[in-house]
Amino acid sequence: MAEQADATDLKSVLRLTGGAGSTPALGTPFDLPMPDLENLKLAYNPRAIAIVGASEKSDARWQGAVFIKNLRKAGYQGPIYPVNPNAQDILGLKVYPSLISLPKPVDLAIVSVSCSNSLSVMEDCAAAGIKNIHFFTAGFSETGEEEGKALEARLKELALKNGINLVGPNCMGINVPSAGVVILQGVKVPAGPVAFISQSGGHCLQLCHYAPSAGIGFSKVISFGNAAVLDSTDYLETMKEDGETGIFALYVEGVRDGRRFFRLVREINRSSPVIVWKGGMTSPGSRAALSHTGSLAGDREKWEAFYRQTGAIEVVSLDELADTIMTLLYLKSAPGNGVALLMGGGGHSVTAADFCGREGLEVPLLGEETRRELRKLVAAAGTSIRNPIDAEILLRDMNLFEKALVAISADPRVDIIIVDQHLDMLKEMGKDNIERFGSAILKQARGHSGAKGIAVLMETWGGDSDVAAERVRLQKEFLKNGVPVYRTLPRACRALSKYLNYREFIRRGS
Amino acid sequence: MAEQADATDLKSVLRLTGGAGSTPALGTPFDLPMPDLENLKLAYNPRAIAIVGASEKSDARWQGAVFIKNLRKAGYQGPIYPVNPNAQDILGLKVYPSLISLPKPVDLAIVSVSCSNSLSVMEDCAAAGIKNIHFFTAGFSETGEEEGKALEARLKELALKNGINLVGPNCMGINVPSAGVVILQGVKVPAGPVAFISQSGGHCLQLCHYAPSAGIGFSKVISFGNAAVLDSTDYLETMKEDGETGIFALYVEGVRDGRRFFRLVREINRSSPVIVWKGGMTSPGSRAALSHTGSLAGDREKWEAFYRQTGAIEVVSLDELADTIMTLLYLKSAPGNGVALLMGGGGHSVTAADFCGREGLEVPLLGEETRRELRKLVAAAGTSIRNPIDAEILLRDMNLFEKALVAISADPRVDIIIVDQHLDMLKEMGKDNIERFGSAILKQARGHSGAKGIAVLMETWGGDSDVAAERVRLQKEFLKNGVPVYRTLPRACRALSKYLNYREFIRRGS
Repeated sequence: MAEQADATDLKSVLRLTGGAGSTPALGTPFDLPMPDLENLKLAYNPRAIAIVGASEKSDARWQGAVFIKNLRKAGYQGPIYPVNPNAQDILGLKVYPSLISLPKPVDLAIVSVSCSNSLSVMEDCAAAGIKNIHFFTAGFSETGEEEGKALEARLKELALKNGINLVGPNCMGINVPSAGVVILQGVKVPAGPVAFISQSGGHCLQLCHYAPSAGIGFSKVISFGNAAVLDSTDYLETMKEDGETGIFALYVEGVRDGRRFFRLVREINRSSPVIVWKGGMTSPGSRAALSHTGSLAGDREKWEAFYRQTGAIEVVSLDELADTIMTLLYLKSAPGNGVALLMGGGGHSVTAADFCGREGLEVPLLGEETRRELRKLVAAAGTSIRNPIDAEILLRDMNLFEKALVAISADPRVDIIIVDQHLDMLKEMGKDNIERFGSAILKQARGHSGAKGIAVLMETWGGDSDVAAERVRLQKEFLKNGVPVYRTLPRACRALSKYLNYREFIRRGS
Repeated sequence: MAEQADATDLKSVLRLTGGAGSTPALGTPFDLPMPDLENLKLAYNPRAIAIVGASEKSDARWQGAVFIKNLRKAGYQGPIYPVNPNAQDILGLKVYPSLISLPKPVDLAIVSVSCSNSLSVMEDCAAAGIKNIHFFTAGFSETGEEEGKALEARLKELALKNGINLVGPNCMGINVPSAGVVILQGVKVPAGPVAFISQSGGHCLQLCHYAPSAGIGFSKVISFGNAAVLDSTDYLETMKEDGETGIFALYVEGVRDGRRFFRLVREINRSSPVIVWKGGMTSPGSRAALSHTGSLAGDREKWEAFYRQTGAIEVVSLDELADTIMTLLYLKSAPGNGVALLMGGGGHSVTAADFCGREGLEVPLLGEETRRELRKLVAAAGTSIRNPIDAEILLRDMNLFEKALVAISADPRVDIIIVDQHLDMLKEMGKDNIERFGSAILKQARGHSGAKGIAVLMETWGGDSDVAAERVRLQKEFLKNGVPVYRTLPRACRALSKYLNYREFIRRGS
């Protein structure tokens, strides 16, 4: 498992981080065998779960009691065993004094004791033969203090010696909605085909908050924190053929085994898109990553080579991540990168075309026939039908709008139509206009020219709750019918560009 | 005035656009004398205004009657003369049959007739001796049709032959709130030190919508459209010593006289920041610009050299424009580019540091003494005080927050503190917490460590109207005290970076 600095086949990209070699405490190749990843798969659908550090103190937001409530809410069917030497009964469940005294085999122990008690819990875990343990507990290498680093090293050693899959520490752990395993607090985790493997628990929460509006559902959400034993690569490995994941999204600050990570991402990405958000790509970010999860972030050039060679999709923010996932999940089709922009305002059109240009999208001059058709619909003064189509009347009069969509989508130069609509202004022009706008988009999406992609922006002023409700309803309908909905044009352009580049990478076969 | 392609002193940057020479219809050096720009200054404070094309039809959104109403609303004190051969009385004002029959000298005629009547209005203007005319009317070169181009060429010829300053056509014209001259519809144009000179009327409207929340006020807002005669350079020239403009912001799609533009921007920028948003920097955007204002956008490299050599601040969107203006107007100080990030969440911290890094900001490791002080305030587990300062408790407990600000601002490595606050979460922790947060920021801004910059994000969930109202109130207070308020961290980083780069350019003296 040791990396070869001089390996030539996969070049320098293999040493993605400075972790291996340069910082023994953080990422030397293990001198003990890795735990069995087959066992980790059990943690995704555990027969029983132990909650260590359970307490009923309701003001303690992250105590085990909260985990129990969340598991129940998510519909977990197996037994839950609270472990606490000082309690009898927690939320109506019998409490056990230690992991050793549990009645049935447990596939996952979730631990939120203080860090000073972590080693004894790990020892109990080994003695009980439990193979997967998640430490929610923080206070380890991420503190930057020698004490925390030493404690993490001991914890890791104990895990490796006993063949235990250690998740974390300093993280929110394993969430598998289809198995009723959800401990993330304050969010729903809808089920679906997206795996999110994240070194940040905060990013997991944020993406879950986002998910409903973007129609994103999860096969698994894993927050893995300091990665003392299990790293992103291990989680990927155990999910690649789980039969329920179609899109892999990762937030990583460091990667221990760069060679294995590279190979795995490249392999998976050929059939299922892999999106990688790398935290710490800049020098300030890199230093912050060290404080966050004790990760050495590795240098920029290596990561750039990684993206180039694996074809993994690079994102740099939560917005980009969510937009990209939504596009991959929903955009029905887009034969190429020719965008038709249907919008209002001359300066706005130039800005929009510039946004497209910066993301490598084309905004082709529409064909003569298309322009002839559009000219039948709009007067010449103050409009442009060359593309961007700057003609507000087409966005306000739904008869004209429908005809315009037909004309534009028939143009062979156009692969995707982006409609920049404003719902309040639409409503001002007629009571049922929003309804009719929805019908026109859906007709287009389902209709004869369905081979062309269509994407929508629905701006609002935010003061009209009916309009806000209509927006939510339309967004759901649109997604269901293959029409992604974006919040801003720059975000739309960026996500569409990532989608097209990914597809192009796959098409080229490299 | 003709450009020399081989001019060596200002290099190729002088030929900013293909306008001169390559496209005779759009931008040949004039063979007739330019109008007198001294006359244009009269239009900024006109003795009387004529409104040509005035009509009382209330459904016609952009008719002259709307201009009259807007002038009255803005407090214009001079006489307004509606001109219309078919009306007697408009909004209680006597209507005149043509520009020739007006009783007193008029310094600005505003025209919204159909384009087919534009030439005869221009002839009347010449006969009446009026020196400034604004054509709101569209249907000229921006249509891309030969007819429109020819009409614009005739209009221009008439203007030049008669020494008339032609504003537009196809634009929203001159707005000077201090003189009560406002014709922009649906927005207030607050008075202040910012001149916005824009080839897009839509961008003028949008920036004015934005202005109140960003504390932006205007000396002049000029929408100049097709620039048949007067170009951005001319407006700049007439404003550079108007005694009321401190910041110049431009949106341009093409520039006719690149040499003059370059020199003027470079000169003004030495004492007053010049922000230039160039539409059509990409190839799709460039083509869109041709459809919008008939501008040839010029190539990217030349514009990049322009920015480098003049030190003008480049922005690419309305958000960037507004954020940059706000920062220039309000940020009290920032001795250097060392940012301290006070926020919550580990992954979020790494992302934030990466945003800073991408914009060239430093996020220095705090000094030992600072860390010692901060460690007295927060526990080690789950926090970081190295910078970013990832410690939610510091943002929720206002006693700790105040102490933290004092400690951080005392650190010599820190030049600007960015506080990423969430108002709803703040309120959850205590009823008067938002109030106390405001006081702490203001104390810091006014206090002993006032030499350090402070900038604030105030996120909200959007569901609590009290919180929303508090946000508006605090934002005003903060701006007044030298604390800019940004909507997102990437936007904060970008604007601060532009501010610092500008200052550095000036400091270097080139």
